[in-house]
Amino acid sequence: MASAFQKHQFTILVSASQIVFLILFGLFGKYDANVLPGGSEDDVYTARLYPMFQDTHVMIFIGFGFLMTFLKRYGFSAISINLLLAVFTIEWGIIVQGFLSHGFAETGKFTIGLEELLTADFTAAIILITMGAMLGKLSPTQFVVMAFIETAVALFVEHHVIHTFHVNDVGDSMVVHAFGAYFGLACSKAFATKAQREHENEGSIYHSDIYAEIGSIFLWVFWPSFNAAAASPADARQRAIVNTFLSLCACTITTFIFSQAVDKHKKFDMVHIANSTLAGGVAIGSIANVVLEPLHAMLMGVAAGALSVVGFKYITPMLSSKFGCHDTCGVNNLHGMPGVFAGLMSAVFVVAYDPALYGKSLNEIYPAMKSETNLNGITAGGQAVNQLIGLGLVLVGSIVSGMVTGFILKMKAFNQVRDKEFYADGDYFETPADYDFNTRIVSRIDRVEINEHTQLTQKEV
Amino acid sequence: MASAFQKHQFTILVSASQIVFLILFGLFGKYDANVLPGGSEDDVYTARLYPMFQDTHVMIFIGFGFLMTFLKRYGFSAISINLLLAVFTIEWGIIVQGFLSHGFAETGKFTIGLEELLTADFTAAIILITMGAMLGKLSPTQFVVMAFIETAVALFVEHHVIHTFHVNDVGDSMVVHAFGAYFGLACSKAFATKAQREHENEGSIYHSDIYAEIGSIFLWVFWPSFNAAAASPADARQRAIVNTFLSLCACTITTFIFSQAVDKHKKFDMVHIANSTLAGGVAIGSIANVVLEPLHAMLMGVAAGALSVVGFKYITPMLSSKFGCHDTCGVNNLHGMPGVFAGLMSAVFVVAYDPALYGKSLNEIYPAMKSETNLNGITAGGQAVNQLIGLGLVLVGSIVSGMVTGFILKMKAFNQVRDKEFYADGDYFETPADYDFNTRIVSRIDRVEINEHTQLTQKEV
Amino acid sequence: MASAFQKHQFTILVSASQIVFLILFGLFGKYDANVLPGGSEDDVYTARLYPMFQDTHVMIFIGFGFLMTFLKRYGFSAISINLLLAVFTIEWGIIVQGFLSHGFAETGKFTIGLEELLTADFTAAIILITMGAMLGKLSPTQFVVMAFIETAVALFVEHHVIHTFHVNDVGDSMVVHAFGAYFGLACSKAFATKAQREHENEGSIYHSDIYAEIGSIFLWVFWPSFNAAAASPADARQRAIVNTFLSLCACTITTFIFSQAVDKHKKFDMVHIANSTLAGGVAIGSIANVVLEPLHAMLMGVAAGALSVVGFKYITPMLSSKFGCHDTCGVNNLHGMPGVFAGLMSAVFVVAYDPALYGKSLNEIYPAMKSETNLNGITAGGQAVNQLIGLGLVLVGSIVSGMVTGFILKMKAFNQVRDKEFYADGDYFETPADYDFNTRIVSRIDRVEINEHTQLTQKEV
Repeated sequence: MASAFQKHQFTILVSASQIVFLILFGLFGKYDANVLPGGSEDDVYTARLYPMFQDTHVMIFIGFGFLMTFLKRYGFSAISINLLLAVFTIEWGIIVQGFLSHGFAETGKFTIGLEELLTADFTAAIILITMGAMLGKLSPTQFVVMAFIETAVALFVEHHVIHTFHVNDVGDSMVVHAFGAYFGLACSKAFATKAQREHENEGSIYHSDIYAEIGSIFLWVFWPSFNAAAASPADARQRAIVNTFLSLCACTITTFIFSQAVDKHKKFDMVHIANSTLAGGVAIGSIANVVLEPLHAMLMGVAAGALSVVGFKYITPMLSSKFGCHDTCGVNNLHGMPGVFAGLMSAVFVVAYDPALYGKSLNEIYPAMKSETNLNGITAGGQAVNQLIGLGLVLVGSIVSGMVTGFILKMKAFNQVRDKEFYADGDYFETPADYDFNTRIVSRIDRVEINEHTQLTQKEV
Repeated sequence: MASAFQKHQFTILVSASQIVFLILFGLFGKYDANVLPGGSEDDVYTARLYPMFQDTHVMIFIGFGFLMTFLKRYGFSAISINLLLAVFTIEWGIIVQGFLSHGFAETGKFTIGLEELLTADFTAAIILITMGAMLGKLSPTQFVVMAFIETAVALFVEHHVIHTFHVNDVGDSMVVHAFGAYFGLACSKAFATKAQREHENEGSIYHSDIYAEIGSIFLWVFWPSFNAAAASPADARQRAIVNTFLSLCACTITTFIFSQAVDKHKKFDMVHIANSTLAGGVAIGSIANVVLEPLHAMLMGVAAGALSVVGFKYITPMLSSKFGCHDTCGVNNLHGMPGVFAGLMSAVFVVAYDPALYGKSLNEIYPAMKSETNLNGITAGGQAVNQLIGLGLVLVGSIVSGMVTGFILKMKAFNQVRDKEFYADGDYFETPADYDFNTRIVSRIDRVEINEHTQLTQKEV
Repeated sequence: MASAFQKHQFTILVSASQIVFLILFGLFGKYDANVLPGGSEDDVYTARLYPMFQDTHVMIFIGFGFLMTFLKRYGFSAISINLLLAVFTIEWGIIVQGFLSHGFAETGKFTIGLEELLTADFTAAIILITMGAMLGKLSPTQFVVMAFIETAVALFVEHHVIHTFHVNDVGDSMVVHAFGAYFGLACSKAFATKAQREHENEGSIYHSDIYAEIGSIFLWVFWPSFNAAAASPADARQRAIVNTFLSLCACTITTFIFSQAVDKHKKFDMVHIANSTLAGGVAIGSIANVVLEPLHAMLMGVAAGALSVVGFKYITPMLSSKFGCHDTCGVNNLHGMPGVFAGLMSAVFVVAYDPALYGKSLNEIYPAMKSETNLNGITAGGQAVNQLIGLGLVLVGSIVSGMVTGFILKMKAFNQVRDKEFYADGDYFETPADYDFNTRIVSRIDRVEINEHTQLTQKEV
């Protein structure tokens, strides 16, 4: 019985969850009035939102997917499991978000429109970040179970951070980036074995590092859309774009400086180029609609780039060896620490800038703060405390739920990845004949004796 | 004489057609008033249309181009011939569409503006789908001749489907996807030889499967734009986006379930991941502006995913062995069957939903249907019949013209691909020195004896 | 002392410049009113500009970055140095542009908003084009020094071309494409050694040619945005899109015809497919807002495609052997000659079309020309002369400053690339174990003896 379940568990669990999702969509889901006949006649709404949605969409599927192809023997999985988890989370995230929504409480139905799809994409990012920490260590079934649990917990925590504590986290640095990273690190503890670390499969080949850059650069280019898509009003949206852009630029230059500086051969490391250059997008995320000075945005980027490279060089190895938290993609350096930094600075910036500077838009940024239209609101200091409470909730929530999830996934009922097949596609994907040569054997070849050197292509002319 | 023509036929035919096109553009083409001075002062028009146009543009050139790079020895051709056929079809399609246009009948001139470019991109998709079926089996000259014939026939059929029978096919599932696929399958019959099937070149290598995913994911991400670009009014456009998005998600999960289920080793197959996940975009295409319930959109996706994987596993091999229709990319499973399914369901949905639900926008969706402003219109039943007639026209038109084209292309006057060079770049592209090793020899290596294993890169430090 | 500087010069120079930039941003930079609270409430502005900005952004980082990965051993550098130079130039370009701005002269501060970021991306293109000519021949430090000098000179020249001579160069064919190309060619003279030419590293492998296509096609697809982003009013913007689109199509077909025609084996060359197909975007650049007839746009494309392929085949080798101007990417053929051609034709089109055709928008295209609202303006002939003066300034400015920069970069104080490591990543990037095999050794293998052929992947089932 257990054996039959183990053989078919992916089919059983994913089919069952898909059927349940469809039933829930059928019973409780309906389209937003904008999307129904007689709804929106407003072309500007779509014209404004849709391009930012599409940029984010590219980040989720191309960006995260290709960024994780850097492992030499795990390219099929990286792209495919990224796709699977993203759509699974989008469906499940729409449902959970729907159940938590105001509309559902009132009418017993949740609505679906363009904004809900965008939010679902953001939710997918949480799970894909966690996937980065667990990359190569879970079977597809385990990844789906992880996504199921994490989505529910993350959205519950996010709901309270945003709606109970009125935290400003416009680019989701806390509720998406930090949550995803620390859930993943906590989850990885349960899988802390020697086999995972120093595994011969854990490394890149020349082409896989280049694939990864496709993902990295699309993330880099579209990050301003990620941070700005939910910002409002129009000036805050533009500000989020510009702040993110400047932070990323400063972060990228800093990454190059530090990458060379920490390397014993004074060479650049593609891991830093692909990952740390993005940390500036995370660091500015919580305050992309707040920062009013170009210099401040750039300084956030400088700090993020430095923090991230130092993290890759010194902290990731230590987390793995000392704390048993093995982090395949180094999400702590791209999403974790920069996310925490964003959260801390979001508290600093509440008090550093005079709230009056935001004029009438103050409550669109900080809904709970005292203003002409919200006379009972809290002070800047109170908002700063709320920002820190939000960060605390995210950290506690992600770490606790991540550890619990790790122990669940470790249960023998679930298919586990075999030790020698960590970070490899072979057990779960049909692979072509050159798979072993190009992803394993090639790394050991340093010399080929050639008796007769004639280029075939020219011979055939 | 014949020999000189054969040697230079690409130059002769393509130059001649290009000169004719330029003359036709010069004689009959003029810019749309929007594009001329004093024209559009409306920024919203461009802001709404242009991003969807660009998404579609990416699908045509990156999406289709890279999706077809999956063959190990045919990457240069896939990308380049995709580019060549797309621009050839865009030029020729603008002319044919122009000659069929209302404006040309009235003024003797056809106009060119942003919408004509978008339509031309859709036309290119027809030819690129057919290219998928014939991938690796035609010389560049033959492909161009094919595009020349098919564009004219397809646009003629489309014109009557849309303007004579007033069919709703907003995402072009019938007139683009089904037409392209069945033209290709019919065309392939003329080339049904044993050499083509079970050819040693017909397969992927590890990296080519990853390239193909670049194309696949960009198609997946931007498909909502493809289905929505031509929808109207604003709510129908948003609805087309949301329906396509949900259909794709449900289709993707279903693809993973079925891909593993039908595999003897219970592994996922990258062919399914790259192709079947997209079938949901085709299936919802004809009704993306019609469906009013999230669940219905998702069920379309579920059906499409299942249909597509089953098609790859059982139908494609059978079509090839029993009917002589060899389908290199499996376009029947991604475009053909899902397109027919879309057509059939487009008839079902006309009668399943009450036309009153669409309110004033009814005639923007179904121009011929009876409404307050079109008292002599047809009933829902009549529209459903029209939808089926449209589907019938597409199938008959594509199959007949495809078979005829196949026989024309088989004529000895045209350069034919040599048997051993099926699915290979070598005869038509200059290839680098590693071409044979990396695309042929590597697949046969399973063991390398290494006497002395020292990493060159470290030795040189 | 010199030795310590040489070892750490990248760290020292880049850190120092970054600190200076931050100080300058802090002292003189402030956000545009649109980006500040109470600023823009106009969603249409962002909806119109932002998608075109993002398309351009993709061109700079994905487009240029991947186009330059065609060299077999230089993929890490191509992408990474492209990224580094782009962000360095964006920061420095914003500062230089700011100092040259009207606002700075008046208030002592320069402003930063969405348009400044777009302009900074255009500036980055100049430097990346030059990088193409110098690809593989400079160390990272040298590249940064080059970007520092070139940005300042290019923006100074551009300022006078646009503001002193009121040249119409809407798609920047002169001030970006021609400047970048001829600066690069002039700079390359200083490095004219035999070692650089006919170097065994200077070539592609099968996969690197395919990577390069990712960049090429994204450039191709988004080029209409590049040429249209700065155009105004709305009809001119749409016209720039449509003209660029048609020019690219005609250019692409012409490229295929010529690529085969000039090849001794009558095969297509991927270098032409990747580069010459884009020349139509450059050629139409200066007049994308001017051309009023579809045929004229297409003829520009035809000429550009032909010119570019002929350039690759005959002119690039001659420039290298006869004039000592080695041009790694062939930027003369993609950016240089088509840019000059654009400049010349921009003078022709001023007089070829009647200025009255542009109606009220005349002065948005040619600000200095005589019109109802600018009675003291210059004639069409005068504008044509100005266009030629602009082109002359660009050519003289780029060639002189490029030559000077070449001599500076050749100074022994700067790290120089070792002869045997031209066009290779190894000296500046950490590379994986398969680097040498897949980028060097593989090209020499033409035969593998296989004693026992068993596919590993199937053995393990």
